[in-house]
Amino acid sequence: MSIQLNINNAGLRAHELEFVRPQVEAAFKTVTEKSGAGHEMLGWLDLPETYDREEFARIKAAAKRIQAQSKVLVAIGIGGSYLGARAGLEFVKGPFGNQLGEKGVEVYFAGSNLSSDYLQNIFDVIGERDFSVNVISKSGTTTEPAVAFRFFKEKLEAKYGKEGSKERIYVTTDAKKGALRGLAVAEGYETFVVPDNIGGRFSCLSAVGLLPMAAGGMDIDQVMQGCADACKAYANPDLMSNDAMKYAATRFIMLMKGKKVEILASYEPSLTMFGEWYKQLMAESEGKDNKGIFPVSANFTTDLHSIGQFIQDGSRMLFETVLWVKNAKHELKVPHDPANVDGLNFASGVPVAEINEKAMKGTLLAHVDGGTPNLLITIDRLDDYGFGELCYFFWKSLAISGYMIGVNPFNQPGVEAYKKNMFALLGKPGYEDAKGALEERLKSLS
Amino acid sequence: MSIQLNINNAGLRAHELEFVRPQVEAAFKTVTEKSGAGHEMLGWLDLPETYDREEFARIKAAAKRIQAQSKVLVAIGIGGSYLGARAGLEFVKGPFGNQLGEKGVEVYFAGSNLSSDYLQNIFDVIGERDFSVNVISKSGTTTEPAVAFRFFKEKLEAKYGKEGSKERIYVTTDAKKGALRGLAVAEGYETFVVPDNIGGRFSCLSAVGLLPMAAGGMDIDQVMQGCADACKAYANPDLMSNDAMKYAATRFIMLMKGKKVEILASYEPSLTMFGEWYKQLMAESEGKDNKGIFPVSANFTTDLHSIGQFIQDGSRMLFETVLWVKNAKHELKVPHDPANVDGLNFASGVPVAEINEKAMKGTLLAHVDGGTPNLLITIDRLDDYGFGELCYFFWKSLAISGYMIGVNPFNQPGVEAYKKNMFALLGKPGYEDAKGALEERLKSLS
Repeated sequence: MSIQLNINNAGLRAHELEFVRPQVEAAFKTVTEKSGAGHEMLGWLDLPETYDREEFARIKAAAKRIQAQSKVLVAIGIGGSYLGARAGLEFVKGPFGNQLGEKGVEVYFAGSNLSSDYLQNIFDVIGERDFSVNVISKSGTTTEPAVAFRFFKEKLEAKYGKEGSKERIYVTTDAKKGALRGLAVAEGYETFVVPDNIGGRFSCLSAVGLLPMAAGGMDIDQVMQGCADACKAYANPDLMSNDAMKYAATRFIMLMKGKKVEILASYEPSLTMFGEWYKQLMAESEGKDNKGIFPVSANFTTDLHSIGQFIQDGSRMLFETVLWVKNAKHELKVPHDPANVDGLNFASGVPVAEINEKAMKGTLLAHVDGGTPNLLITIDRLDDYGFGELCYFFWKSLAISGYMIGVNPFNQPGVEAYKKNMFALLGKPGYEDAKGALEERLKSLS
Repeated sequence: MSIQLNINNAGLRAHELEFVRPQVEAAFKTVTEKSGAGHEMLGWLDLPETYDREEFARIKAAAKRIQAQSKVLVAIGIGGSYLGARAGLEFVKGPFGNQLGEKGVEVYFAGSNLSSDYLQNIFDVIGERDFSVNVISKSGTTTEPAVAFRFFKEKLEAKYGKEGSKERIYVTTDAKKGALRGLAVAEGYETFVVPDNIGGRFSCLSAVGLLPMAAGGMDIDQVMQGCADACKAYANPDLMSNDAMKYAATRFIMLMKGKKVEILASYEPSLTMFGEWYKQLMAESEGKDNKGIFPVSANFTTDLHSIGQFIQDGSRMLFETVLWVKNAKHELKVPHDPANVDGLNFASGVPVAEINEKAMKGTLLAHVDGGTPNLLITIDRLDDYGFGELCYFFWKSLAISGYMIGVNPFNQPGVEAYKKNMFALLGKPGYEDAKGALEERLKSLS
């Protein structure tokens, strides 16, 4: 275990954690006893023990086959079928992983938006190179991935023929039913399972996330080991020695004090997509029934020259959770300049990572002084193991804090609203009734 | 002019705009008469008329020289010396502009963080290729760019020799004083000016942003034309026919209603960095004296499967400003599938851009129904002209809304707080007194 939580700068009075202990412990029990709303979606809770070893071996074999047959994997999915794998790959390989070509294939993501320019960009980036496709969708009918898959299937068949393309299409979908399952069986594509009892935002360590991560060169044994260790550590029912509980409790206290926006701030661009993953997990789990802490992510020191001013001195409704990585991968020391033009010689020879650390610590104190409470999560390094650990930490903590505010942390009914309107406007069969009224309202836009 | 603002779905009652008219007009006058706090930083107000034509020609010539001598330009800067150029390049070239190599050199940004892993990534991406550097810093002593410049200067000199490197270093700094000005004069680097009367977040259409944009292949004549047209359009003092005023007025009304978070949502990944630029502009201008609307950006439909749930049904403190691009660059029509496996044949042959539009319109109505008011900004297309226009629209609007809430929109005193602590912790001369007390407080982190 490498995750550490420090809440000494959250501004809590001595009794505050103790006073919410009954609430946190009740929520913890609701999770572990699977007695709360949405409990049928708690498959992630003991995932490291229960996951399908046979499928896991097939994922690793498929990843090797993709690496042998292609330069590029196009992972087609949206929401939880997109964010986890991308967050993991950038966590480990950095934001330029695809350009540096260190290990694994290049992985590009499609089907997570409806921009034709973006889609064309992905076509152009692939160019004439060999590619494979992993289409990830529980139902196979979600619009964004379905549209993208039509294009890529057509391209694969044009390039490799109907038969050849079958070797290059990997399907992650429902175990038994659904459009994509049916197609995969009919065509003989290799398939993997989107579990029934794990929601999208908790699914990145199922086949949903594991196949693109493995194809991109991640060590998914290590990922699962990190997840397993976190699973053990956060099974501890004692608030004071379980950081996942303590993080949930502290977030709850922040919310009670009117801090309705949480900023997850990191000091590594490699964590940008992890911030996006965190935003989905938090927003979809808590943001319902007109409740919830609104999740935001930031990348420091970059964003200290952007939203930093607001965090320091703007409207006081924020708290900050810093995700700090203790060990940088590369040691680079500030070069010495005899002329000292920039006045920086006081830092000559100092590792850049050490300056980053002083920036983090100085910023933390400055923001606390400005009235933005701080929570600090420290991890050892950006590696496969750490990614698995951290996912579980946030899942468990979030499940607890969702129950604390009295919502079902495992559904996302609000995501349907835009889809229904879009289907009606597009004339999808079954949605005809709503179309006229929507079009009438859209006159307000012209 | 191609920008259109539609506030019909902001939920305003008929009298509301009229009732804030005196406040908006007063703020507008404070801007145009340069009578308010920070008025000495209003150099951007008539920039399209007053900019230095001789320098502009030199910027274009330098961009051509960079394109002839290098494959890569490293632009070194932070905050306003980083975000504008990057936002512009992605606005026009898309998120994969560097990989597609369509026009101009590849532009990578450094000196906007203190991550040694990121820095090493940039070194690796450049590899053995020819590169030039544009270092952008008013003082030349800001830590992040100063650290990065030491590394790249050393690398240039190692690769091209002391003399050769002089041809590849372009300096954008204060016109007369400062460390970087001194160095540039001593070494004979070509220099460009960071204007005295334009703050960082308003500087992207000065040399600060124009040189990287031009080197990366943008048509900066068109950028300035868009800016000039917007400058004329938004000089109109009538609230009802000036969209920049109307946007400021509507944001003010939203804030008065308790909507303290604004989400700038686009439907094009090419606008991701524009969202980052907007966040700096808003947060640094308004986020002070414990005031301000907290700015957030989102990319739809991607983030409809992330923060979408919260926008639809979470804590009701949000309003949404959609930045919609009317014309996609690429027309791609949904392929037909005779088997209709995914049930998507109702959309066969429909341009993806049209589905995107239906998604936007359906989402807009769904979010309004959920209690998130909507503002809609429409632009024609993602081109150089549109970028120039849009920057001016937001500058002008923000200046007005800053004065409406009673802050100086043009300073950012809060950005100094973290720097002071960081300098003290690093032992920078002049900051010795603060060090002991900070280190004492940092014991709370161990």
